[in-house]
Amino acid sequence: MDEPIGVFDSGLGGLTVVHAIRERIPGERLIYLGDTARVPYGTRSAETVVKYALACARQLVARDVKMLVVACNTVSAVALEALREELGIPVLGVIEPGARAGARASRSGRVGVLATSGTVSSGAYERALRAVDPSLQVVTQAAPLFVPLAEEGWVEGEVPERVAERYLAPLVPHEIDSLVLGCTHYPLLAPVIRDVARRLFPSEVTVVDSAAATALELDRLLDERGLRSSRGERGLEVLVTDQPGAFSIVASRFLGESLGDFPVESIDL
Amino acid sequence: MDEPIGVFDSGLGGLTVVHAIRERIPGERLIYLGDTARVPYGTRSAETVVKYALACARQLVARDVKMLVVACNTVSAVALEALREELGIPVLGVIEPGARAGARASRSGRVGVLATSGTVSSGAYERALRAVDPSLQVVTQAAPLFVPLAEEGWVEGEVPERVAERYLAPLVPHEIDSLVLGCTHYPLLAPVIRDVARRLFPSEVTVVDSAAATALELDRLLDERGLRSSRGERGLEVLVTDQPGAFSIVASRFLGESLGDFPVESIDL
Repeated sequence: MDEPIGVFDSGLGGLTVVHAIRERIPGERLIYLGDTARVPYGTRSAETVVKYALACARQLVARDVKMLVVACNTVSAVALEALREELGIPVLGVIEPGARAGARASRSGRVGVLATSGTVSSGAYERALRAVDPSLQVVTQAAPLFVPLAEEGWVEGEVPERVAERYLAPLVPHEIDSLVLGCTHYPLLAPVIRDVARRLFPSEVTVVDSAAATALELDRLLDERGLRSSRGERGLEVLVTDQPGAFSIVASRFLGESLGDFPVESIDL
Repeated sequence: MDEPIGVFDSGLGGLTVVHAIRERIPGERLIYLGDTARVPYGTRSAETVVKYALACARQLVARDVKMLVVACNTVSAVALEALREELGIPVLGVIEPGARAGARASRSGRVGVLATSGTVSSGAYERALRAVDPSLQVVTQAAPLFVPLAEEGWVEGEVPERVAERYLAPLVPHEIDSLVLGCTHYPLLAPVIRDVARRLFPSEVTVVDSAAATALELDRLLDERGLRSSRGERGLEVLVTDQPGAFSIVASRFLGESLGDFPVESIDL
């Protein structure tokens, strides 16, 4: 149980989940694998995503991780079952924790979800939310522009506000009172989304960060499965399949810490 | 010389070059290969881009193309030499035609370039413009948000206007009079960019579409190399490495015609 926890994403966005885990569960070693050579998965077919996800997961299993956090909505939407079938370790996705937190935050039973086009068309959040409570009304909205805004660090000011207004406006008539951020990039835009929601919606909407929700469930799962590390060692190792130009700046933005403080290794898949 | 012309891009953006070629040179058959399973290349290392580009080019050569148009700025920036070395056919990129047209359009000798972060950091436009005229002053500006705006079809209204203002404002003090659109996605935003340039710059700025410039040079090259088809047959065949959700809508947007009118084949690389 002193083995590290594997965290896997198609790119760097999953580092927001690493950030949330490090905040909530300081005493675990993490190995993050970002498949930066093949990011983004969101525009790929389900078949391709499953193939890529298995290849990444095998790398982490070979490094002896005790469990796997799939810090990627696209992979969580289509490949969780394939991963659970093949790997002999617990696998936690980001969609179910986000959906459960979104359902808990709603009193009206009307929940909104913002995600990438790929995640929206997969219908994964509807399924996960209805698994919690079949009577929930779920409205999803694709918000693809949020991804480059987060990567660019354009997380405040007029442009992200206008973009957020455009994505939130269609949700207003549905009178949601809980809004799940269904993409690992979106936590960086949570302050703007909260502000715009406060302005557009007549009553309060709770914005649910699925990265934080995942860290919370991971914390519980470690106890449930008896997997919590006894050493309380903190650590992070980062594996990537490619290191393009602004790599380290973008990664630090998502991680909320300087990537320079951690070992980064390029691997070939 | 009745063989088709191969056109290759990392994704679907290169279809704007196909559109420009079909407008200017109607009597040629084209085979387009979009590496949609591994798009975008712009965030990848030069080494990875060369590897992917060679794999794609080999596919087109195996289909007997008489020449290759690299309808991708990232590939044109880093892999043109490798492609020319390996393939036994003429290879035309998009950067040199765009740079030459940009230089021609400038009277002041001050040229601006909008491109993705990858293309900007490659320095390829500076090199290509200075090869035309070493005395040119070149200012480049990364404009990554234009890519998802074009893909989403958000090509008019407040959001693209605000984004264009933000990207063009830093160019104003440089008093450019020619602005090259150095990304195949950007022609869709040319009207907004022209409008915003008219508003922001004190004197006229010519916006140069590198897709149209590439079609123009291709037209000349066909005669120079004696490669013009004698049959005058028009045609387009599309090969892709993946067909994600909104694939056909996005492709038709770039092509300016319905993709449904042409044969589309998925291939594995």
